[in-house]
Amino acid sequence: MNDLPKKVHINEEGPREGFQFEKGPIPTARKVELIDALSKTGVKHIQIVSFVSPKAVPTMADAEDVVRGLTLEPGVAYTGLWFNDQGLDRAIGTGRLEIKGSISITASAPFLKKNLNRTPEQQRAVTRGMLDTYRQRGIPLDRATVMAAFGCNFAGDIPVERVVEMVGQLLDLAAEQGVKLERVSLADTMAWATPYSIKRVVGAVKAKYPQLELELHLHDTRGMGIANAYAGMEMGVKRFDSSVGGLGGCPFAGHAGAAGNVCTEDLVFMCDESGIETGIDLEKLAACGRLAEDVVGHPLPGSVMKGGSLRALRAKVREGIAEGARA
Amino acid sequence: MNDLPKKVHINEEGPREGFQFEKGPIPTARKVELIDALSKTGVKHIQIVSFVSPKAVPTMADAEDVVRGLTLEPGVAYTGLWFNDQGLDRAIGTGRLEIKGSISITASAPFLKKNLNRTPEQQRAVTRGMLDTYRQRGIPLDRATVMAAFGCNFAGDIPVERVVEMVGQLLDLAAEQGVKLERVSLADTMAWATPYSIKRVVGAVKAKYPQLELELHLHDTRGMGIANAYAGMEMGVKRFDSSVGGLGGCPFAGHAGAAGNVCTEDLVFMCDESGIETGIDLEKLAACGRLAEDVVGHPLPGSVMKGGSLRALRAKVREGIAEGARA
Repeated sequence: MNDLPKKVHINEEGPREGFQFEKGPIPTARKVELIDALSKTGVKHIQIVSFVSPKAVPTMADAEDVVRGLTLEPGVAYTGLWFNDQGLDRAIGTGRLEIKGSISITASAPFLKKNLNRTPEQQRAVTRGMLDTYRQRGIPLDRATVMAAFGCNFAGDIPVERVVEMVGQLLDLAAEQGVKLERVSLADTMAWATPYSIKRVVGAVKAKYPQLELELHLHDTRGMGIANAYAGMEMGVKRFDSSVGGLGGCPFAGHAGAAGNVCTEDLVFMCDESGIETGIDLEKLAACGRLAEDVVGHPLPGSVMKGGSLRALRAKVREGIAEGARA
Repeated sequence: MNDLPKKVHINEEGPREGFQFEKGPIPTARKVELIDALSKTGVKHIQIVSFVSPKAVPTMADAEDVVRGLTLEPGVAYTGLWFNDQGLDRAIGTGRLEIKGSISITASAPFLKKNLNRTPEQQRAVTRGMLDTYRQRGIPLDRATVMAAFGCNFAGDIPVERVVEMVGQLLDLAAEQGVKLERVSLADTMAWATPYSIKRVVGAVKAKYPQLELELHLHDTRGMGIANAYAGMEMGVKRFDSSVGGLGGCPFAGHAGAAGNVCTEDLVFMCDESGIETGIDLEKLAACGRLAEDVVGHPLPGSVMKGGSLRALRAKVREGIAEGARA
């Protein structure tokens, strides 16, 4: 089965993922510098901050300052992440972010217990509460995610039927509030996916819900990120989360939790070379990858920013031929 | 098209690729330590050294000592690389290597000129000479490679028809010596391939030569290695070269030519998780990846050796369930 899309939409999550992951403090101005550079690459969506407790995540304490410091680029949606009403209020308070609702449920009950200390029933109740808030405040629901859709460190393999069932639960929860979900995100939260399982799970969800658009959130902990993205594209998936430079991860073995999102430049390179449009300028994006390394102060996992794209090489070859023709 | 094989054969090339690539001297005993560890993982083929001029490649000056130092594991083929009769004599002289012939031609004339200062006609003459040597000395021809099959820094994109034509040339050259080639290796020498081009090129070669077995030699400079390998497997390719830990590459941007082979552990992990047999113990192999980092003294690009396999996680989950059942 090969259903390669003509065009792919990329949600850049590097700033939010990366700044959250980094241990050392990063000056607000440098965060702004990277986000501003990203906004000029053709990326249409950048998730930049989390509105979380500064005690829990000190590196996000300057979230409002980051948002305030940006030079907003027309046509780019800047978004933030929040987990409760307080976070939502902070996001709205900036007056500069696109406020769209998101909900998520988890395919693994043990993970839910470990991560949020909730039962699946409690999680559905929380989700209902969030949907209610969105409805009351007129916030459109943009994203609905099944977390741990490809496996879980605490539950092991997740049966495909379970993922299909969770997608159904999301549709039902939204429908209760009169919202018809048109898109669902499948998240490989703990990097269990391989191209093989991507095709199996995406195929099963599409078989049951052929009208539903799917989105993939892929982590690269086991080096499968790009292969998983391509497998998704071959199954017709058109939307991906990714991180410039692979922000959120680190190539050092000693660095626990080296689990970034799939690298944006590498993904865009693969799309470019497959005739799939992204609207993003790869050279500018690769420069952002190198800037990100400078901002965080250590190497990042991305490959294309180091190995180079093929555009410059092709241009050199053409020049060589032209010179040869003149000789 | 999906023709995923049941079993995949891996040629481990890490020692030869890696020791050749590294700048600093590595003690012979440490090279031997890594190769001996690899030989106990279930890998059936390890390319360990090059017999080249010590002036040109000082890190290979101890090739004979490395071979002499090994504890040979039954069932493992240890091979070396050579480029002329002198190198071949050195390889035979060790008395411990599997001596099999290999030939290669290049899909890019400009690369051939840059790399070996030969015209395609001259390369064919050299290849005829090598085949003649193999025949005279009773050395079986094992490998025939089309280099730069997916693109070239000096010629740009390589037309698919050109690759098919080069495969035909290899078959003809072998046939001139009465040898029927059953296998051809396509090498992505300069890391131009993507899953898309892998499928296109492999598909075209298979369409013209359906009986011919194909083999892939993939570099990871642009992060496409694993995705390319999976694309190859989906096209029925059953043989891959790879490098433990991604030896031969380096994740640092400043390290010019960061272009290792696809990482063996990551490849084996992907096979394991796709139900494809390799005969290799992933945990032992990942330990070799970490040993390789220690031997070369810097981080290597491999992911699974850092992120861990899923076997240990599954075992923990099973234990947890068992405990739960007892409670």
